Amino acid sequence: MLKYQHIAAEIEKYIQEHALQQGDKLPVLDELMVQFGVSKSTIIKSLELLEERGVIFQVRGSGIFVRRHGRKGYISLLKNQGFTRDLDHFPITSQVLELSVRKPTREAATNLNISMEQDVYYVKRVRYIYEQTLCVEESYYNKAIVTYLNNEIVSDSIFDYIREGLGLKIGFSDSYLHVGKLEEEEAGHLGLHKGDPKLDVETIFHLANGQPFDFSRITYNYIQSQFFIQANGHGM
Amino acid sequence: MLKYQHIAAEIEKYIQEHALQQGDKLPVLDELMVQFGVSKSTIIKSLELLEERGVIFQVRGSGIFVRRHGRKGYISLLKNQGFTRDLDHFPITSQVLELSVRKPTREAATNLNISMEQDVYYVKRVRYIYEQTLCVEESYYNKAIVTYLNNEIVSDSIFDYIREGLGLKIGFSDSYLHVGKLEEEEAGHLGLHKGDPKLDVETIFHLANGQPFDFSRITYNYIQSQFFIQANGHGM
Repeated sequence: MLKYQHIAAEIEKYIQEHALQQGDKLPVLDELMVQFGVSKSTIIKSLELLEERGVIFQVRGSGIFVRRHGRKGYISLLKNQGFTRDLDHFPITSQVLELSVRKPTREAATNLNISMEQDVYYVKRVRYIYEQTLCVEESYYNKAIVTYLNNEIVSDSIFDYIREGLGLKIGFSDSYLHVGKLEEEEAGHLGLHKGDPKLDVETIFHLANGQPFDFSRITYNYIQSQFFIQANGHGM
Repeated sequence: MLKYQHIAAEIEKYIQEHALQQGDKLPVLDELMVQFGVSKSTIIKSLELLEERGVIFQVRGSGIFVRRHGRKGYISLLKNQGFTRDLDHFPITSQVLELSVRKPTREAATNLNISMEQDVYYVKRVRYIYEQTLCVEESYYNKAIVTYLNNEIVSDSIFDYIREGLGLKIGFSDSYLHVGKLEEEEAGHLGLHKGDPKLDVETIFHLANGQPFDFSRITYNYIQSQFFIQANGHGM
């Protein structure tokens, strides 16, 4: 963790510990520098990070303010690090339906920017929140990047393993959302009925160097899942 | 438009005109400074803005690269400026069902952070893409901020009017998404059937100074609408 990331985490902790609410004002820049014992440029980078994450907003000439926190139990559609973290007050478990090495579908190959001859790890799992089904997920990992997976890893957070076990740096992601009706097989996995509403989220996850490493499609149980998005309005 | 915003727009135009694809490398910082005739700090701010918007990504020690553009016809869930702009190659029209001054519901008052005695503009409209229904929208605008609306304005882009007509600076937004089944009345407006899938997006829009000015709920026609989200992975 870089220094400005560490300071950002400290400021976020400060907001939580003081139970600050939307619109509450934070100390001015100079005070924050003194309070955390770091340079002005570090504080500025920390604040930019917190603004991007939707924790604060800055008003030129007026100050730094706390931003509303997402409602509890909502899944952020912006944090591209797997949702185990959003729902960290909720117990998430996984049932692995399949883990295999295979050749990608044409769609997966295109999205991973690999040929159809290259190996991928294919993972299919149902995820549960408390004892309700949350979603069914199919993922294709480029095996040249994600070199190893086993049943124990995929029963838990695959992204934690990629970061900590493989030491890879996760970058940006592109997600595409469609609402539709459940197919029979999906409905079976989710404990719902064929034709019930569903949200499909297709995501291409990239490393920080821009290489796509994971193409996934998650089908959510519409009863159990709700989502939030915090957007910034910079210059658009 | 500030200088760095203008340069960002120029760089985006350059990417389009040269038909650059995901992973294509842009000129280095020094070259961009010369090419656009601006300072290093301006170029850096322009690049940060483009990164935030998902147009480029930067790899430390390696360079600046073009990022995949959203698929055509998808509505961005991140640009909080109304979707007239995402779908600017598509003709969007509106049918106004109601425009009135009234007292807010309890929910609207809470989200707008006003009392239930204060006036709001209530707008209900159906929006069309080509001649298909795209969504039905209900919005509550705090009348103390959005002081004037009429039928002509609400038939077009309300956000363009707020920015250009009222001269207000739009800031961040918080959105909450739920998937569910259409009620009879909603289905009627959308030309669908009761019980068909729907996506509800509830959004609180704020001015740049943090004041909420619009609380809206949009119910999308699941057949006509698809969405994309570009997420950055900074330090999470």
